[in-house]
Amino acid sequence: MAELTILVFLLAFFALITVFTAAQCSTNGLPIVRDISKLPQDSYGIPGLSHMTVAGSLMHGMKEVEIWLETLAPGARTPIHRHSCEEVFVVIKGGGTLYLASNSHSKSPGKPEEFRIYSNSTFHIPVDDVHQVDYLSVSPFCCIGLRRFFWFNVIMGAN
Amino acid sequence: MAELTILVFLLAFFALITVFTAAQCSTNGLPIVRDISKLPQDSYGIPGLSHMTVAGSLMHGMKEVEIWLETLAPGARTPIHRHSCEEVFVVIKGGGTLYLASNSHSKSPGKPEEFRIYSNSTFHIPVDDVHQVDYLSVSPFCCIGLRRFFWFNVIMGAN
Repeated sequence: MAELTILVFLLAFFALITVFTAAQCSTNGLPIVRDISKLPQDSYGIPGLSHMTVAGSLMHGMKEVEIWLETLAPGARTPIHRHSCEEVFVVIKGGGTLYLASNSHSKSPGKPEEFRIYSNSTFHIPVDDVHQVDYLSVSPFCCIGLRRFFWFNVIMGAN
Repeated sequence: MAELTILVFLLAFFALITVFTAAQCSTNGLPIVRDISKLPQDSYGIPGLSHMTVAGSLMHGMKEVEIWLETLAPGARTPIHRHSCEEVFVVIKGGGTLYLASNSHSKSPGKPEEFRIYSNSTFHIPVDDVHQVDYLSVSPFCCIGLRRFFWFNVIMGAN
């Protein structure tokens, strides 16, 4: 029921985004080149998170992919979640542990595999695999992430 | 006719990739975390280019997106080309000029707009827009690029 609620909300949200961007997706309407240091950041309510959308649908008119830059304070972690798209991360600085429950599409993904992530490494999350990342580095964790534009996110449990 | 030949070749190539990756797309079959410094590089015959696929379909089993790391020698340039996907670039080091002929889907895109690209900037190429990048920096140009997996590339003319 909770998943259904999230899906309905996201459907409405992406429908709004589609209408909004359809009016301003021309090259003339949006800048082709942008200074990353001047892009807005947000924590989305997650302690220790600084998330910057480098290229996305709403602000930049992207239709197929989105890319973001994230910095996390030492000890920060993502919720346990999964989404209907694959993700790729490039770790610029810091490290931690990726917990991944492969091919687990239920509410009880079971015991996940553990993977160490580190500076100058890349890791990917297959479609719908339940995962969580613990950022254990003593310095802030910085990564570039990307995925296709249309996806649904489902939070599986508490942090 | 040349475009048709390229499309037929690419169709056969991506069909081969699809068959190849279908056999090894499980998490067990491919590493989730990889050391970027150990990934192979190639110039693809372009002088001054070092191209590294950070996450792609053939070697890494990606189904939706691909990301690469490119380093180019000062003065290097891409061919004039367009492709059936949007691209996003994050400029890590160096700079140059992007030439972009927006909404030009013919063999004669006309005079392009010029955009200066620089370190810590991001730029995107809309779907099917003819473009070329001159890397004028005195130091090597380094960028991260991404796009969705399935796309067709068409070379429009000489370098």
